[in-house]
Order: sequence, then structure tokens, then C-alpha cells
Amino acid sequence: MSLESSNLARLLDPRAIVLVGASDRSAFSRSAWKNLQDLGYSGALHLVSRSGGMAHGQQTHSSCAEIGEVVDVALVMVPIAAMDEVLRDVARCGARYAVVLAGGFAETGDAGRQLQEEMVRTAHQLGITLLGPNCLGFINFTRRAACWTGSMRAPALTGPISIVSQSGAIATFAKHFAHQQGIGLHCVISTGNESMLDLSAVADHLLDDADNRVIALFIESIRDVARFRALARRAIQLGKPLVVLKVGRSPLATQAAQSHTGSIVGDDSVFDGVCKQFGLVRVRSIEEMVLTSRLLAMLGPLDGKGVAFLSVSGGMGELGADYAHMEDIFLPEFAPATLDALREALPAYATPANPLDMTGGAINDPRLLTRALDTVMADPGVALTVCIADVPTGLNDDWTPHFVSSVHEIGRATTGAKRPVVVISHTMKYVSDQARALAAEAAVPYLAAGADLGMKAVRHALSWSAQYARSRAVAFPQGNAVATATAEHPHSEWESLRYLAGFEVPVVPAVLATSADAAIAAAQASGGPVVLKIASPDIAHKTEVGGVKLNLSGPDAVAEAYRAITTSVAAAAPAARIDGVLVVPMRRQGVELFVGVRRDPEWGHVLALGLGGVWIEALKDVSLRLLPITSVDVHDMLGELRGTRLLQGFRGAPAADLDRIAQTVARIGDAALALGATLDTLEVNPLLVDGSRVEALDALVTYADRPGTSAH
Amino acid sequence: MSLESSNLARLLDPRAIVLVGASDRSAFSRSAWKNLQDLGYSGALHLVSRSGGMAHGQQTHSSCAEIGEVVDVALVMVPIAAMDEVLRDVARCGARYAVVLAGGFAETGDAGRQLQEEMVRTAHQLGITLLGPNCLGFINFTRRAACWTGSMRAPALTGPISIVSQSGAIATFAKHFAHQQGIGLHCVISTGNESMLDLSAVADHLLDDADNRVIALFIESIRDVARFRALARRAIQLGKPLVVLKVGRSPLATQAAQSHTGSIVGDDSVFDGVCKQFGLVRVRSIEEMVLTSRLLAMLGPLDGKGVAFLSVSGGMGELGADYAHMEDIFLPEFAPATLDALREALPAYATPANPLDMTGGAINDPRLLTRALDTVMADPGVALTVCIADVPTGLNDDWTPHFVSSVHEIGRATTGAKRPVVVISHTMKYVSDQARALAAEAAVPYLAAGADLGMKAVRHALSWSAQYARSRAVAFPQGNAVATATAEHPHSEWESLRYLAGFEVPVVPAVLATSADAAIAAAQASGGPVVLKIASPDIAHKTEVGGVKLNLSGPDAVAEAYRAITTSVAAAAPAARIDGVLVVPMRRQGVELFVGVRRDPEWGHVLALGLGGVWIEALKDVSLRLLPITSVDVHDMLGELRGTRLLQGFRGAPAADLDRIAQTVARIGDAALALGATLDTLEVNPLLVDGSRVEALDALVTYADRPGTSAH
Repeated sequence: MSLESSNLARLLDPRAIVLVGASDRSAFSRSAWKNLQDLGYSGALHLVSRSGGMAHGQQTHSSCAEIGEVVDVALVMVPIAAMDEVLRDVARCGARYAVVLAGGFAETGDAGRQLQEEMVRTAHQLGITLLGPNCLGFINFTRRAACWTGSMRAPALTGPISIVSQSGAIATFAKHFAHQQGIGLHCVISTGNESMLDLSAVADHLLDDADNRVIALFIESIRDVARFRALARRAIQLGKPLVVLKVGRSPLATQAAQSHTGSIVGDDSVFDGVCKQFGLVRVRSIEEMVLTSRLLAMLGPLDGKGVAFLSVSGGMGELGADYAHMEDIFLPEFAPATLDALREALPAYATPANPLDMTGGAINDPRLLTRALDTVMADPGVALTVCIADVPTGLNDDWTPHFVSSVHEIGRATTGAKRPVVVISHTMKYVSDQARALAAEAAVPYLAAGADLGMKAVRHALSWSAQYARSRAVAFPQGNAVATATAEHPHSEWESLRYLAGFEVPVVPAVLATSADAAIAAAQASGGPVVLKIASPDIAHKTEVGGVKLNLSGPDAVAEAYRAITTSVAAAAPAARIDGVLVVPMRRQGVELFVGVRRDPEWGHVLALGLGGVWIEALKDVSLRLLPITSVDVHDMLGELRGTRLLQGFRGAPAADLDRIAQTVARIGDAALALGATLDTLEVNPLLVDGSRVEALDALVTYADRPGTSAH
Repeated sequence: MSLESSNLARLLDPRAIVLVGASDRSAFSRSAWKNLQDLGYSGALHLVSRSGGMAHGQQTHSSCAEIGEVVDVALVMVPIAAMDEVLRDVARCGARYAVVLAGGFAETGDAGRQLQEEMVRTAHQLGITLLGPNCLGFINFTRRAACWTGSMRAPALTGPISIVSQSGAIATFAKHFAHQQGIGLHCVISTGNESMLDLSAVADHLLDDADNRVIALFIESIRDVARFRALARRAIQLGKPLVVLKVGRSPLATQAAQSHTGSIVGDDSVFDGVCKQFGLVRVRSIEEMVLTSRLLAMLGPLDGKGVAFLSVSGGMGELGADYAHMEDIFLPEFAPATLDALREALPAYATPANPLDMTGGAINDPRLLTRALDTVMADPGVALTVCIADVPTGLNDDWTPHFVSSVHEIGRATTGAKRPVVVISHTMKYVSDQARALAAEAAVPYLAAGADLGMKAVRHALSWSAQYARSRAVAFPQGNAVATATAEHPHSEWESLRYLAGFEVPVVPAVLATSADAAIAAAQASGGPVVLKIASPDIAHKTEVGGVKLNLSGPDAVAEAYRAITTSVAAAAPAARIDGVLVVPMRRQGVELFVGVRRDPEWGHVLALGLGGVWIEALKDVSLRLLPITSVDVHDMLGELRGTRLLQGFRGAPAADLDRIAQTVARIGDAALALGATLDTLEVNPLLVDGSRVEALDALVTYADRPGTSAH
């Protein structure tokens, strides 16, 4: 498989198109033809049919070679058996792109995969890049071009949002939903089997397309994680949001794995971590994807986190407060000057507050909507104003004049507003042509999402904006940030701790003793109770072989423990190589963190951070990131943990030094990366945190036989 | 305030209505009049206007007395100042009900509350029951009657769902949304200030109304929890779902409270517990409320939990699997006979499985939809079949014939289907009149919710059905179930443990020692290491005064601990009454549960169950129920805890005896109730669970000065 990332302008904005396999009998051909007519495609449109004659009322050519003009894109609607010959013919009219509709390739199994590989080889030889196979094609609403074999709703609305989908059906549903909601689109692209162009390549092109601002992605699987990661990084840096609907949340059977991390990290949680790391906006439904894309396209990056919530009903205001609470949206108190101005603007019985109930007084005097909006938008703590109001769908009842005049009054405030504002419908509403025209005429930035889904979209806009601001303040670490690639290969706890110490990770002062006397001396030097642990590269689970003794004070106890450990281990693991016995100070208090790096078969090295013990095992309370990471990432990860309260000075314990934790965890990540591609797992368990003391108490590194995928 | 619960048929299905304050100049009067015309109200309609003359093209009376016929309901559209006189006039035409539109009553503060109380007194004297004030009125679509002063969409669709709302605006938005989605309604009732009729009274009436099957409630606050609780209990017993949208999820400032429970239990979590206890369906949006109500009305109780998910797209099938995972919906594997039949019914390239991708082959041959549906509905493990498919909104493009024929093929399977089935749209869709007619003609049970919200509604239907089945198998405990009301008032740990033991709650064998020798004897009798704890009714926090010594072995240690405790306590709490020192066996292992009963100012005695220690304090991982409860409730509560895994044999520990826990916690609840209305808190912390041993290790009871609200 070879993936192309060149400029796709000639594919998506073709000057000439040929439909190969054109026929009045084919529903696909009829659709493709009609879609181009409906769009008003202004380029040259050729038809090729082996049997010749007319199709769709136009003379066909019997081959592409016969066309005699240069064509940019061929839409190939022929069966697999004819594919090789057709592609060779397509090359003869100069087409550099072919959209392949046919199924029966890699999606069907090994035989199909072989057919697909043959087709790709042919295409490569011919200098043709394929979209598909097994795809519906593309539509470019802005440029009025399409090779789209499915249904396309008219009128075609344009807007700065593109949909790129591995499923043609989902692309269709999303497109239809956008049209129902009065949301314009730029491109809709179905990538199918992605034999040469995958969604990352297509989206990467769209990032540079001035007609595009937001990309909505439907993902079933990611073929090239390095490419996807680069796409995600570039998108946030350019300030162009990626809104992602990815399937696969349901757990696959977990593989038995030796390490903790192995059983904790599901593929989907890794993807969740990737979204947080790179500012991808993850959604759970087609509706949320489309509406969130629209809001992001309307607003761009927000400068702050304060949201004002306005409606004309007390009940809706209470719902707004609840949504803000559930979505963690900050509704600041208004400034005194705002409150004073609202007292002026609203009826006497109104209560100036956020959420703001503008009151049913708006029925008698819609101008209070303008006054309230103007006032709230000027509040210094408000980064985004959300006004819940409907643009009427039908304009045919007694109340229509009131609603129309309300929309115009809102428009007086939103027209040319210097501060971000969005008008969200009370419930999800169909946006009729009339409603769209009215909103446009009044210049109301309207999202007919309903308050619930609308506030979810608002939360996404706030989170994305924060990630965008951060991406401008802190550079993403590069894969080669770890300059100190090492030839070391630590195995045992003792080696692993020493290795980490070399990366300035604070580790517990451990002494390797090879005699009882040495252990006694180490314990005395340590100055308090100690722990003795067997040191062996062959023993991962020390407790199970009687290899650990806790809380030892005094020479007798230490000597006795030394003997007990060596005797017990010799009996339980006679073949194990024994380095000696580690003597470490006994730590009595603090919060245990778990830091684990695992080589994910898909994503490469992933770092997991969680609270230790039952937290990670029973609650799966863990945050994940791809390596490399910075301490800024670790701060985010700490914020995602449900148990994070334990670090904030819980039950009278000192508050943890989060900066020090962040620095330490980032260094553990660097240390893991420096071990290279054969690293399988590196675990620090626990990383003990006691106020400002952060200390690795135990560590273990394992290796795979072969290097893993390296995805950075 | 007095609440009426009599049969409201004469209010909601009136033979004669009078509009008092009728005027062409009033938008409210115009709406009320027009709504009755649009509904085709067939009863007598009278207008009263003090100034006389014509209104809405009809002659008015100058008073109700003048009408000369009996009227059932008066819609009163006059200002507060005229209210007393108008009500007295209304009584003269025999009206037993008045709907009061005016605001300015209790919702505005004390002065308004007084006005409202005066109005209620007058109404009582006159034998009139008020709906409102400060309400929009009611609509009865089925009986074509209304006293509704707001907008009402035509055509009026009827169906077995009613909306009862404390907010007139929310009632309006919900009604409009229902109409947009093609969902018919029975009654819409705005209860406003609920001066005489609250939502419980109205809903209680609707439970007995044969035209009604599901009630959707929008709740801001519950005025009478006993009445609400009785409503909820009756609704589940009758198999008529209550679907509740309640605001107030955002936390109020938590009051400082001495007990754990005090800081843990927020009002909203109590309401969540009430919903689970009584099978209320709690939703978070107007859309979810309306669509869930519709699904429940369509399906009735489901017999089983297996769901089959069918669509014509692989992508949608994957989304379905994710939604099932997120909503905890069980998608069983199909039986072998089903798989065989699906292989017959579907194209060769289809994979028979659940979720089932019926494949795009349905485009060429829609009959495969019928075959697949028939097959899956017959599977013994499938309690509900979900088919994702659209009924087209517009019927005006090339693909229309295909979609129409698909709907008819689906209808061939769903018509007269013996097993529950629902057809859910891919995304939320507007249901046009055409679409509604097509679905009706084809007899397709259609919910245009989109797959995401549709699967949430499915989850609600499954949960409600399970609660309904349970309510038929296990009677709800009554408030008087606890026969053994007691005169005891335990205070100290010692008294509290003895009191609980009287209710057959297993408690740790504690001995109260009043001398060091007695403590030594008790320790020796106990047979292992012991704990010594100060016993005093005045000391709640024993550790803080040096009142606890752990893990004591041998007479010397016990004697020394006895002296240390008494000395330390005497110094730290010289005024405390000392009963002695408790000697209890030291328990080393097990899972700590927390059981706390608190008197909630609104709901009465609430029992909280959680895992002890950091689980409850840092995670608020707690489940709540109103007392009394049964062991069946406790099983549910255990299932709600995130930490429940710790009870299932975690890390090699024995699995806990859940039946024994359930029985014990239910007895603690009974013990708390028996203490009567002055009980403030009763806490068992911890209730230690070690396999089949369940044991209260510590307990404490506190009392309030005055009896609390008693709500059972």
C-alpha cells in the first residue's frame, strides 16, 4: 500500500471528468450524472461506454483514449474483471485520478486484497492515484464538482466544513443531516478501502484548502498512525479543528498480558488519549459531529472560558445551569456594571444573573433581547454568549410576527458583534428554507441543535480553543526530542531504578547487598526502618516467592530477613539468577501513582498514568498519551484522573507538588523512548508522592523480541 | 396550600368552557379562542367581558352569572386586582375549576404568596379548584378541549402521551418538538404555581385515564414528596411510565455538616436514587423526554433484555455496537437457527451477526429487509428488535421509490409482529406529514430519534421494563413495615451497636470494660489481637482525642493502652462522660462499606451505601434510597457502585456474600426508621465485609431537636 499526500486540487476541483461505464441502466451512473447537473458543474463532462451509443442524453465515447482531450478525474463504474484494462484506458486521456466504486476488494478477504494490490500496482505504473475502491466518491459543493454515485440533496448548501468518511453510508447520513439543519458543506469524501488515499491524506489536503475551516471525520480504523498523528498536530497548529466520530468503543476481548498496562490499555482508551493530546474533538453521534463542526466553523478559537447563557424562560435557564454543570462549562457571575445595565434593560421582575432569564416580557417588547444581548456580550468575563431562541421553521401561525421580530431584534445585537455569540434553538429543529433565509437576513448565527446538544458543542468549542491556545504556547515534542538514545538494557528492579536515575527521575535510595552484614550496614546508613527485596533479573513477582520483607528495624531483624528471603527464593525459584538483596528505606505515607509505558501494536509507545492499587485495577482510572510527552501533557493527564483529589491534600495530607510529578513522569517517558523500539513495557509502580517528595519505589523493564512499530 | 387529587375529568374534558376576560385586544384571549377552534371543541363556549359587546366574533356576557347554563371550567384571564370578584362570579355559573393565567403571585415573593393564599382561600370557600396561577393552562388533544393561552401547532396529533410541566415554556417547547417528530399527544398541562393542583395530583389523575399511557414530567421542585412518592409507586405498579426531566443537577453550596452523609448527599443524588427506586425514567433533555415517552408508549413492558440491532450499513452497525456498550444494552449472539436463516436471507457477502449489517444489497432487493426482520424477531434471545432505517421526509428525488419500497418491506415484517420492534432513523429527522402518512400506511413503528438518542430511549425502555417486572414480583415496603417502633435512643458507639444487634444486624463482639483488668479479661476472651476505643456519648471523633489503640496483643499491651486512652481522653475532653473502654477484636482484612442514614429536609430519611474510606470521600461513590428499603433495593444499590468490583473477589480475596450484605443493610434501614422522626443520622462505618462475614465495626446515632419531615 502506498499513500499519496500530494495536493489533491485536481481531484476535488477537476476541470474535466469522465464517467467510465456510463449507462442509463445503472442507478450509479444516473446518480453521478444527475448530481453533476444539480451542482451545475461547469467543466467538461465525458461519458465512456464500451457499447457506445447514448447515455443520459449524451453521446458516449467507446474509450477514454477516444476523448481526445485531457481529463482530470475518471469515475470508474466497472466491475473488477474490467478494472485493469479500464485503468490503462483512463491513463490515455491523461487522468491522474480515478474514483473506484466497485467492491469485492480488500474488504472481502485475502483474495480481494490481492486483487486490490494488483490494481494499485497498475495505477502506480500509470501515474494514477485512486480514491477507493469500495467508495461512493466525492462532492465538492463549493466548486460544484462531484464524482458521487449516491443520493445528493438539493439545494446544495456551501460552507467551510468537509466530511471525510471511511463509510459511504455514514457520509450520506451526515450530509443529509447537515442539509436538514441548514448547514452548508465544502467537500464530502468517501474514502472506502483507502488503497492509495487514506483519510489522513485527504484531510491533510483540506487543511491547506482556503475554502475549508473544519473537517469532520468518520473513522473505523486508522491505517497509518504516524500519518494520522502528523495530521492531528498540523490541524491544531493551523487552528483548523478535526471533529472525529470513531467507532470501536466496545471492548475487544482483552489479551492476557503479563503487565498491568497490558490489561488496562484498550485501543479505544488510547484513541481517547490521542484526542486529548492533539486537540481532536471526539463526538459520539453523527448529529453531534455535524453540529459541533458547524459551531466551530462559526466561532473559531475562543479567547477565554466564561460563557453567558440567555433565554426567555426560567425553566430553560435552569436546564442551562444543569448542562453547564454536566459539561463542565464555566458560567461566570456578571460584572457589577453588567448587572446594573441588565436592571435597566429588563423588566423590574427580572433577576439579573447568569444564566439570564430575559423573561416572557420579550413577547411584548422584543427589543429587550437586543439590549440584554448587547449588555452581556460586553461583560469582560464572557468569552462566548449563548442565546437560546428559535428561528421559526414554519411562518404560518398567529405567533409568527412575534417570532420574526424577535429574530430581527437578536440580529441587531449579533450583526457585527465584536464578541463571539451563538443562537441555539430550544430543541433540535428542522431548518426550513424559510428559516434559513430569515436567519441569514437577520444575520443571526443560528445552530438548531437544541440546548442539550448545543451545550455539548459549546463545551467542544471551549476545549478545542484551550488546546489551540496551548499548541501556540508550547511546541509539541518531536520524536527525536530524546537525544540520549542509549545502549543500556536494564532488566531487574535494581538496574531499572538506576537507569531511571540517569534520566534524573528521583528514585528511592536502594543499596544492593550481597550479604547479611552488607544489608545491616545499608539499613543502618539509611537511618530508619527498611524493606528488603530480592534482586534478580529473573523474578518479576517478588512477593510470591517470599522475596520481600517490610518494616525492618535493627540489625537482628535485617539479618533474619536477609536469610529468610534468600532461603525462600532459593526454594521457590532455584534457577533464578540472584544479584543480591535490595535494602531500601521503608516509606509509610504518600499517594501511590502508577506510571506504565507499553508498546501498543498500533500506536507505538503509550504512557499510562493512574493512581496505584485498587484505583487502577478496579476503576481503570488511567490517562493515556503517546510518547513523547511534555510536563504540560502530564498536568492534563492528572486533571483527567477521577482520583486526582487524593493529590490535593486529602485528609490532612500535604498537597502534592504537581509540577514535580509532571516533570518526573515526562522524564520517565523520555527514559522509555531512549530504550528504543524493542522496549515492550516500562513500569514504575509505585511512584510515591508525599507532598513535594516524588520517588520511584519500584521499576521494571521488559523487551520484545522484535522492534515494534515506531510511530513518532 | 391544599392539594386536590379528585378525578379531574371535568377539568380536562369539559362540557362547557367560559373564557373570562375575553377580548380581541388580548393575545392570550385570541390564542385561547383560536386553539379551541383549531381543535374543533364541540362543547359550549362562553365569553365573559366586563365591558360587554363582541369578542372573537361572538357575543359576550358581562358576567358568568349571566350565562344561565352550567359551565365546567373557567379560563380566567384577568389581573390580580379583579381576581376575588371574578372567582365569586365564576362560582355562579357552577364551574368547579378555574385556570388562572395571571402571574404576580407566590413566584414573586412574600407579598405575592399572601395574595395567592387569599385566592386559594376564596376558591376553597367557593368549591373551585384552581389550575395555576401563573400557568399557560391545558390542552386535551384527544378530547379536543383546551384552556391554553399560548401557541398550539396544528394539526393536532393525538397519542397516549401527556406532558405535565411546572414551566409553561418547557411544555410549549416539548409539545412543538413532539409535533415536529410526528408524535401525538393526549394532554399538555402547565401547572404553574400549583396553588391547589400540583403535578402529582395531575399525573395521578392521568394514571387512571384510559387515553393515557405515558406521562412526561418537567419538574423544577417537588412540593409534596409523600404525594410524589405515592404517585411514583402507583405508576410503576400500573405499568404506566413516568418520564422525568428534573432541573437542579448543579450543586448548591453544600452545608457544613458533622456527619459524612451530610456532605455526601446532594439533593439531586437523592432524586436520582428515588428514580431508581421507583422506576422513574430520568432524562436530560426535552428531546430525550419526548422520544423516550414515545418509545415507551409504543412498546409497553419488554419481556427480556436481549436487543437485536439491524441496519443496512457496516458503519451504522459499528455505531450500534458502541451505543449498546455505552448504554449497557445487551446484544445477544443469535441462535444457530437464526444464523442459518440469515445466511439464506442475505447476500453471500453478508456476515450474520448482531449487530446485523443487512448490506447495501437492500438497494437492489428491499425484500431482504422483510426476510431479515422476520428472522431476527423470531430469535428466542431477542426481546426487542431495533431496525435503523429512515422513513423519507421529502418524497421528491430519484431515490424516493427505493426508500418508499423499503418502508413497505419493513412494514411487511412489523405489521402484526408478535415480538416488539421499533424502526429508528439514522439521524434525528423531521417527520413531515408525508413521512407520517407513509409510516402509518406501512404500519412501521417509527421513532425519528436518530441512532444515538434512539438507543438511549431503548435503554430507558429496558430499565423501566425491568423495574416494572420487579414491582410485580416484590411489593414495595410500606412506611409501617417496621412494626417495632422503639423507645430506645442509643447515642454512643456502644449503645448504637447494641441497638443494631437488636435488629439482627451482625455487630463486632464488643465488651465494655471499665478497668484495665476487665479490658485484659475481655481481650483474652476474644482470643486474638484487639482494639481499644474510648466509649463516651460525648465523643464522636475518638482518634482525635487519643481514644483508639489498634492491634494489641497480650495483657501488658492491653493494660498500657487502657491507661493511655483514659489519660489522653481525660486531658483532651475533660467534660466528656466516660462509659469505659470498648474492647473489640482486631479485624485485618475485608472490604469496608459505609452505611449512613440521614434525614433529608425534603425527602425524609435517606439511606446511603458506599465503599468506605477514600471511595466515598474522594469519589462520592454512593447509592441512595428513601427508607424503607428491602434487600432487593440493596442489591440494586450495590450494582450502582463503581467500586463494586472490590466485592467480587478482587485480588484473590473471597467474593462477598451479597445476599448477606443486602439483608444487613436493609435491617440497618429498619433500625433507623424505628428510631422515629427525630433521628438525624445513623452511621455504620465501617460495615466490614470479608466473604460471608458481614459485621458492623462502628456505629453512631445522632438526633435532631425537632422531628423531621416524615415522607413515607
